[in-house]
Amino acid sequence: MPVGTAGTVKGIRFEELESPDLDARIILGNTYHLWLRPGIEAIEACGGLHNFIGWNRAMLTDSGGFQVWSLGELRKITEEGTEFRSHIDGQLCFLSPEISMQVQAALGAEIAMAFDECAPGKATHDEARRSMELTLRWAKRSREAFDVAQVANLRSFAPQDDEAETSTQVNNLRYPQALFGIIQGASHLDLRRQSLERTVEVGFSGYAIGGLSVGEEKPVMFEVIEEVAPRMPGDKPRYLMGVGTPEDLIAAVAHGVDMFDCVLPTRNGRNGQAFTSLGKLNIKNARYLEDQRPLDESCRCSVCRRHSRAFLRHLFLSGEMLGSILLTHHNLAFYLDTMRTVRQAIRSGQFSKFRREFTEHLTSGWE
Amino acid sequence: MPVGTAGTVKGIRFEELESPDLDARIILGNTYHLWLRPGIEAIEACGGLHNFIGWNRAMLTDSGGFQVWSLGELRKITEEGTEFRSHIDGQLCFLSPEISMQVQAALGAEIAMAFDECAPGKATHDEARRSMELTLRWAKRSREAFDVAQVANLRSFAPQDDEAETSTQVNNLRYPQALFGIIQGASHLDLRRQSLERTVEVGFSGYAIGGLSVGEEKPVMFEVIEEVAPRMPGDKPRYLMGVGTPEDLIAAVAHGVDMFDCVLPTRNGRNGQAFTSLGKLNIKNARYLEDQRPLDESCRCSVCRRHSRAFLRHLFLSGEMLGSILLTHHNLAFYLDTMRTVRQAIRSGQFSKFRREFTEHLTSGWE
Repeated sequence: MPVGTAGTVKGIRFEELESPDLDARIILGNTYHLWLRPGIEAIEACGGLHNFIGWNRAMLTDSGGFQVWSLGELRKITEEGTEFRSHIDGQLCFLSPEISMQVQAALGAEIAMAFDECAPGKATHDEARRSMELTLRWAKRSREAFDVAQVANLRSFAPQDDEAETSTQVNNLRYPQALFGIIQGASHLDLRRQSLERTVEVGFSGYAIGGLSVGEEKPVMFEVIEEVAPRMPGDKPRYLMGVGTPEDLIAAVAHGVDMFDCVLPTRNGRNGQAFTSLGKLNIKNARYLEDQRPLDESCRCSVCRRHSRAFLRHLFLSGEMLGSILLTHHNLAFYLDTMRTVRQAIRSGQFSKFRREFTEHLTSGWE
Repeated sequence: MPVGTAGTVKGIRFEELESPDLDARIILGNTYHLWLRPGIEAIEACGGLHNFIGWNRAMLTDSGGFQVWSLGELRKITEEGTEFRSHIDGQLCFLSPEISMQVQAALGAEIAMAFDECAPGKATHDEARRSMELTLRWAKRSREAFDVAQVANLRSFAPQDDEAETSTQVNNLRYPQALFGIIQGASHLDLRRQSLERTVEVGFSGYAIGGLSVGEEKPVMFEVIEEVAPRMPGDKPRYLMGVGTPEDLIAAVAHGVDMFDCVLPTRNGRNGQAFTSLGKLNIKNARYLEDQRPLDESCRCSVCRRHSRAFLRHLFLSGEMLGSILLTHHNLAFYLDTMRTVRQAIRSGQFSKFRREFTEHLTSGWE
């Protein structure tokens, strides 16, 4: 899932997300950011998040739990929820499972996430246990508040004016929403197993592994994935939050993960790093001054069909925004195309072969 | 002509420039900027400017005269040419009619511009006359150097390797180049008439009015246009450089001008100002917080078909680059569509009626 924190996947138009190059079926939005700006009233006045941003395909909204947690000293976590200062204007705000569910119901994404607390990657067993227990209590409150909000919103969003036709169409896309639970427990495998079992007991439409890619070592991350992913319900989507590089995604798929979100393709693209079939490429490098090859000779995206490394480098060195636009497009195309190939390989029973070849290519690099 | 100073029309992909929304047939590049960065060697190595940036439609390159002049204290103008310090790294550089023509021939745009000197909008008669005389001497040197460079470049760009097919195709698009002369004389109408006559004597494929929109009052600008434009050769394109607002363009067309370039649609778009059929609109304004209307209700561009003012405002307030991307697209669509309508109106003998109605609309504004 391309990440569209503030209701926009940075640097790329929705038309491009829908184009055959990318064909993104779902994008991610963020409760915390949208709640603070433009505010839920404005989004509701515009008929929910899909209408507000002009995107008719699926969306998932994160609960804001992670964002609030990552504010560090700016927030105070209690049993009730999290008090924090807005990163925009310093205003004191309060987010709880109930508020997050109300906001997410109003945003109206196809998938909402439970409000969780994230322990640091290197949390002790005690810290991680306390945090996990809190997340479990919040999971129950999320579930209940979500169910209440659903009923209220299904009613309030029903067509009732002269824009009935449009509203109906959007309603059909948006409802009923699904709620996913989040498994925590930091790097402690016993806590992770407990968190999984007890989150499944609460009962969600999908399950996510949270609290990874937050400062722990990569082998630790994979230990957790290896422990948790195969034990997650097989008939529900398995979502690994905030991960990762192309090789991370494929390694996680090997353990049974279905869904991912990550800012790497967009953020690194904006900064001049391209993901290619032969590994990463820093387009600002002087060696590309007169390089007429595309970013990735095996990529068929519109950027690789049209533009040379020499031109892309020139755009970055000149501070031209088109550079960020084009690398974002290519990186998303590369990620989404890789995942399409992964799905094909799984269907045809060739995943292991695909993974071996893909990884060999990746590590061969550009000479 | 959308302005693509550094080989990119800021914030917009070439695919969008080619799309029916915009259908830009020609864009402008800048000799000064491209010569300094990435440098003419890199562009030549990539097969000229079209190949380098990936644009197969027409281009016009400005000569660098205006850009060097606008460096102010960083440059020193002599008979031979202009010595200046690069705005990028402070390096001492020298640009002359001969160098500009060589560079423009290597860039290979369909239209090159003579190397001129621009007098300030409020130059005295003496200053303006001296500047005009220099520009005339430079016009002759430009003409001669251009003709020499053409012969040399037609030879050096001839297909000679295994990419012969591509090269031939590009050559067909690029050659022969046309060279336009530039009329100067600041606000002094007698100098403007002299400059016109003597520039026409040198002989060019088209003629441009330079030295406007450089600090003079708007009535002064139109006095010059009214004096010069109708006297310019009727069988050659008449190009007004660096102008202006939609109403300026239409007023200049009424005096016989054919071509324009201006950064307003792109620069103002990046900063949140939209040009619409009812006048300018500053999208950051609080009144648009929940405004579900498109930027311009009579515009059919992809931005107006899809996105509300509320969303566009949100993008600008959140510092999201998509805001600049979308307003740039709309503004270019509005400008190019207006000029298409102008051409239709002229063909059907309805220009005066069109102009009256267009201007009435523009000044009515958004309530």
